Amino acid sequence: MKGRVPVLVGITDSAFSESLRLAKIAAQCGADAVVLAPPYYFAAGQPELLEYLHRIMKQMPLPLFLYNMPMHTKVKFMPETVRMAAEIPGIIGMKDSSSDLAYFKQVQYALRDRDDFTFMVGPEEFMAEFVLTGGHGGVNGGANMFPKLYVELYHAARNRDLDKIQTLQGKVMQISSTIYNVGSFGSSYLKGLKCALSVLGICSDFMAEPFHRFNEPEREKIKKALKALHL
Amino acid sequence: MKGRVPVLVGITDSAFSESLRLAKIAAQCGADAVVLAPPYYFAAGQPELLEYLHRIMKQMPLPLFLYNMPMHTKVKFMPETVRMAAEIPGIIGMKDSSSDLAYFKQVQYALRDRDDFTFMVGPEEFMAEFVLTGGHGGVNGGANMFPKLYVELYHAARNRDLDKIQTLQGKVMQISSTIYNVGSFGSSYLKGLKCALSVLGICSDFMAEPFHRFNEPEREKIKKALKALHL
Repeated sequence: MKGRVPVLVGITDSAFSESLRLAKIAAQCGADAVVLAPPYYFAAGQPELLEYLHRIMKQMPLPLFLYNMPMHTKVKFMPETVRMAAEIPGIIGMKDSSSDLAYFKQVQYALRDRDDFTFMVGPEEFMAEFVLTGGHGGVNGGANMFPKLYVELYHAARNRDLDKIQTLQGKVMQISSTIYNVGSFGSSYLKGLKCALSVLGICSDFMAEPFHRFNEPEREKIKKALKALHL
Repeated sequence: MKGRVPVLVGITDSAFSESLRLAKIAAQCGADAVVLAPPYYFAAGQPELLEYLHRIMKQMPLPLFLYNMPMHTKVKFMPETVRMAAEIPGIIGMKDSSSDLAYFKQVQYALRDRDDFTFMVGPEEFMAEFVLTGGHGGVNGGANMFPKLYVELYHAARNRDLDKIQTLQGKVMQISSTIYNVGSFGSSYLKGLKCALSVLGICSDFMAEPFHRFNEPEREKIKKALKALHL
């Protein structure tokens, strides 16, 4: 991105050493920060998680965002854990993909005296509400296809322009319901997004095992959905 | 083990290539079979899981047991998936750690015409019942400490000796309630077992991140629990 926007790189892994290895590669490639979810096979308790963060940050070459993704990791960063983690040098923010706005409020409240700590939201469907209520932005998959739409929505939320939010939100929900819901498995979101990016000529729709790109019938649906968006 | 008992090696990983790499190392080291749970970050659907097995078995150097461990992987091998997977050359059995005997009955029923397919159970607390009702054995953590006890329990179950099962089961439950329940996190089982193995001089209690060995107070509890077992 040549410095125009900060680049954050995911380094989540079940192995401590592997996360560090990924962080070092990210640093060598010029990333601005890394993003780390809890080890995701054998679930850790909160004190174990906090100690893990203390230990991994000692060798971390870049600033780090906590990544709360309980659907995949089974483990939440509880509000008190985030508050204590925010005191570890190098931990500068959090991305919350829990879809649980009540949880986010609790985290935000626990860190109410830390206005240097950055909160990003995962699900794009309520990025506007998240920013309206004090969040700082979103990591929105759809912005890979239509960056302008999501940036406009972000600015509308920052400006508390509720009418504009409502208009733009309609497009975001149309993307969510037509691009991310083709196919019947939990991976529909990933497959739909990858397929759309491939249709738009932005990147390949190759997926890592155990997932595979959409076949022709689903690809046709994605093409139609993209056309219907008029973006 | 110099061929006295078959050695099965876990190769579960979120990366297809990493599981294969582990399998190849296991094969080079003389393992008899490998054990594979589903990729455990982004949950796959059943058809995706079955296709994944088809693809990975094409390069698998050893026979393979499916490893059903939904607590950690979030994904179950559903009975129909196991039935179809059992038709893939090289897939010879399953280890079920779900603690769900109703689920196991369904799998067993779906494969009732496949008496060449081997069923092993994870939780040692009901290994006897599992074997009594047609299972073939257990992968019992406690057998690392007291192999004789678990082998006797297995033979008692094979011989349908319900009185003997009841006596031996008492010891198994005492191990479960005193060795595996020190400490307050999900990792108590692992930590207690590792600590006991270290107290018994069998191996070190080192644990991979984010977990750590018990400290002295917990170690004292484990020592006392081991003594109280009279094994």
